[in-house]
Amino acid sequence: MQRIRMVIQYDGSRYHGFQFQTNAHTVQAALQDAIFNLTGERKSLLFASRTDAGVHALGQVIAFDTVASIPLDRWALAMNSVLPEDIQVLHSQLAAPDFHPRFQAVCKHYTYKIYRSLQGSVFQRHYAWCNSEALDVESMQEACEFLLGPHNFRSFCASGSSAKTFTRTMSRCEIQEEGDYLCLYLSADGFLYNMVRIIMGTLVDIGRGRLEPGQMASILARQDRKCAGPTAPPQGLYLVRVDY
Amino acid sequence: MQRIRMVIQYDGSRYHGFQFQTNAHTVQAALQDAIFNLTGERKSLLFASRTDAGVHALGQVIAFDTVASIPLDRWALAMNSVLPEDIQVLHSQLAAPDFHPRFQAVCKHYTYKIYRSLQGSVFQRHYAWCNSEALDVESMQEACEFLLGPHNFRSFCASGSSAKTFTRTMSRCEIQEEGDYLCLYLSADGFLYNMVRIIMGTLVDIGRGRLEPGQMASILARQDRKCAGPTAPPQGLYLVRVDY
Repeated sequence: MQRIRMVIQYDGSRYHGFQFQTNAHTVQAALQDAIFNLTGERKSLLFASRTDAGVHALGQVIAFDTVASIPLDRWALAMNSVLPEDIQVLHSQLAAPDFHPRFQAVCKHYTYKIYRSLQGSVFQRHYAWCNSEALDVESMQEACEFLLGPHNFRSFCASGSSAKTFTRTMSRCEIQEEGDYLCLYLSADGFLYNMVRIIMGTLVDIGRGRLEPGQMASILARQDRKCAGPTAPPQGLYLVRVDY
Repeated sequence: MQRIRMVIQYDGSRYHGFQFQTNAHTVQAALQDAIFNLTGERKSLLFASRTDAGVHALGQVIAFDTVASIPLDRWALAMNSVLPEDIQVLHSQLAAPDFHPRFQAVCKHYTYKIYRSLQGSVFQRHYAWCNSEALDVESMQEACEFLLGPHNFRSFCASGSSAKTFTRTMSRCEIQEEGDYLCLYLSADGFLYNMVRIIMGTLVDIGRGRLEPGQMASILARQDRKCAGPTAPPQGLYLVRVDY
């Protein structure tokens, strides 16, 4: 028996999120089906981050135990031969028997993309939030700085979360204009349920002038979801990388 | 009765090409259904370019006659409210009663995108040719120059074409590296069946070193499809604009 660790990429458009659900099309089910096809072993895999329906991953991390004799360097190729075309294994390696992709993660990196063209684009509809409103990017950048460091992020946590503590340490919070895109880069030791999307929705409210940049501090202090902005749509969100 | 002209954008991934076919999902059928929904009028529309299955458009041009009283500036909005989310009207205007988007086109512009990352990308699978081979871009650029000007392009025309003449005048033929992409830009007064994809396939054979750049001239001279390279896959091709 050995534990295999993989980095995977997926286009979340067609899926009801990562985590397995009875009667719904999930990334986890597709991965477990692929492992079953290759090994005959049906078991639940471990993963770093539960992404919502429509959310994408450039570097989700999974792990599972197997007795299969597939050589380590062939796992990615083998998996990709049986996975649907919108899920791809980028890398596989042997992991410690107690490796857990969620509990042992020390930093997670997310990107959120807004596509700002007035005309919209059929090519962006699944891959960015198409939003052509005039946004004051400087104010949004200013507001980002209030989120850096350790904070109680309860105001940015959707109800339904099973989190026991709401304190997370944000090591990067930057918003950048990149051509027709406005990209938010977030890195932290952990994220609460919908945290990136609520931060993005709040930043857009600031960009619209509905909130002042400085109000980010008071929203944090209130520890109340109702004080923050709306939840940005899922299709602009990418889980980029998980560090161990 | 008035003739309406529209510029439309579509993601061709889900369609069996632009042109109407019985029992196949086509862009033309989706557009005609939308017009029927709005006007109750069921008629065949005119269009600038027949794009193949999986090929995209940033600026396809269509035209149709209608007696409907929808104000001209509301047509795009009205169409977009009933079209599937992968087809979008960008612009509508009144056209001359004899306007024909294909016969009156003076120049068409296409782009073909190759995505060159070694790892591939699930996000590019419908929007570029994922090809990580080492390619000599300078040789490809050199070969492009042989295609400029008026030529008989029969070597770059797939069988099944209904073209009566094979001479077209190419006003732009350029290949450029843009980050992880290699983009081919072609402009001409007209294009033959699969012409862009066969040119791209031939250029890639040159980039691989299977053909010398100078052989582009002899391939043109032979006027025989068998002399040119393979047909590049459809998903990298975009109809960008049509000039009148």
